[in-house]
Amino acid sequence: MNYVEVCLSPADYPLYRENFELVVVIDVLRATSAICTALENGVERIKPVASVSEAEHWQLQGHIGAAERNGEIVQGFDLGNSPIAYIQRKEELAGKSVVLTTTNGTKAIDIASEKDTVVIGALNNLDALCNWLLDQNQNVLVLASGWKDKFNLEDTICAGAIADQLIESGRFKADEDSTIAAKFIYRSARDNMFAFLRASSHRRRLRRLNLNEDVKYCLTPNNLSTIPILRDGYLVRLNEKKVPSDLHKSTSRARA
Amino acid sequence: MNYVEVCLSPADYPLYRENFELVVVIDVLRATSAICTALENGVERIKPVASVSEAEHWQLQGHIGAAERNGEIVQGFDLGNSPIAYIQRKEELAGKSVVLTTTNGTKAIDIASEKDTVVIGALNNLDALCNWLLDQNQNVLVLASGWKDKFNLEDTICAGAIADQLIESGRFKADEDSTIAAKFIYRSARDNMFAFLRASSHRRRLRRLNLNEDVKYCLTPNNLSTIPILRDGYLVRLNEKKVPSDLHKSTSRARA
Repeated sequence: MNYVEVCLSPADYPLYRENFELVVVIDVLRATSAICTALENGVERIKPVASVSEAEHWQLQGHIGAAERNGEIVQGFDLGNSPIAYIQRKEELAGKSVVLTTTNGTKAIDIASEKDTVVIGALNNLDALCNWLLDQNQNVLVLASGWKDKFNLEDTICAGAIADQLIESGRFKADEDSTIAAKFIYRSARDNMFAFLRASSHRRRLRRLNLNEDVKYCLTPNNLSTIPILRDGYLVRLNEKKVPSDLHKSTSRARA
Repeated sequence: MNYVEVCLSPADYPLYRENFELVVVIDVLRATSAICTALENGVERIKPVASVSEAEHWQLQGHIGAAERNGEIVQGFDLGNSPIAYIQRKEELAGKSVVLTTTNGTKAIDIASEKDTVVIGALNNLDALCNWLLDQNQNVLVLASGWKDKFNLEDTICAGAIADQLIESGRFKADEDSTIAAKFIYRSARDNMFAFLRASSHRRRLRRLNLNEDVKYCLTPNNLSTIPILRDGYLVRLNEKKVPSDLHKSTSRARA
């Protein structure tokens, strides 16, 4: 029996990191949703970096630059972390290397990169990710990126969804109250996440920026099947060799 | 309009501390429940200290020593943080000074002591505390002590109960997702907290120590009316002068 536990924010990571060599990083609004979308839509690889200056450096090395701070695209970049933008610019981005820095998600990836295996989770790739995790026979730590090290609701819901699927399989168990709480919040929210998140601080932030379409997209479970994995400093498609990604855009267990 | 926000663990306190000069410290199982109980039952004052060695020092200065680590009384002390023990030894402890150190609660009090006003909350004094907070016209930060800096369910429920009462009054609002989540978890748990906490890690820990009676006591709302406040390094009864504590053991709004 393996453990699946939820770490509610990067600030708490040092308290939870022990006993895990596989970490799932979650930043539903919007970094990890965008990463899954970009790779599924043909981007070759994404270099996640913590700072804007690192992103500028890799942009000069020929990467397409993507940078977001406080919900907006950073000056000097023409992509941020809008998943819809990666779909709209699919042809232009196909086969390209992208460097990405965001307020929360890429920092969480950076923190987790000490571990053997780092994969990227979102509601968009929920079932594909859970099915893969079920085959790994490893303890799983789900790391919510939060907002500037604070707890947030949408990442907690997604982390709870992953914990819930793994625990329900009977092959995983949880010991931490954070995991119990995340699972509980997910179960309460799952039938209407958009309404549940009405009051959340980040959704209010994105609404001010006219990003409701992005929010709706990010809250759609199982419209993607790509599992991004960190290899040699780049996020790439874990499952590329096995199944062409456009053959299984939906799964039988999709709840959307 | 004032803010009430919930900080889910002492590790997160630096992220939430700004803009608050009034902090409510919560450690339902069992430190803050024991503090409220001890002061309501006649203990004159309680010196909260972070370490066992400090507790030993003050014990030598004539204080009655109380020390708990990992749910058990520390060797060399004959009190811990069992609220029921303070009731059972009421006569012996009346008018006395107690020094108290616990795994989580007294550390959270220590962290919060930088602020102008630190008061102690528990489910036991929920309504009395909320009624007082409603009169203060100050922003309120509710600090959950957690378990060794980790999130825990019972403190989150109590913090959510306080946030809920203050927000429902129309005189407070909340901006943080942590507050929304705590309020939500409280509302789901309030009708049967004992069952809700069945799976919580701390309750399992206390059950192993045969402390179910303490747990039941700590999950009883509004059986106390004392509000402990930190003054000159001691927790004392805030409302001592106004109302003799044994005249109002229950309130009309009690939900127990």
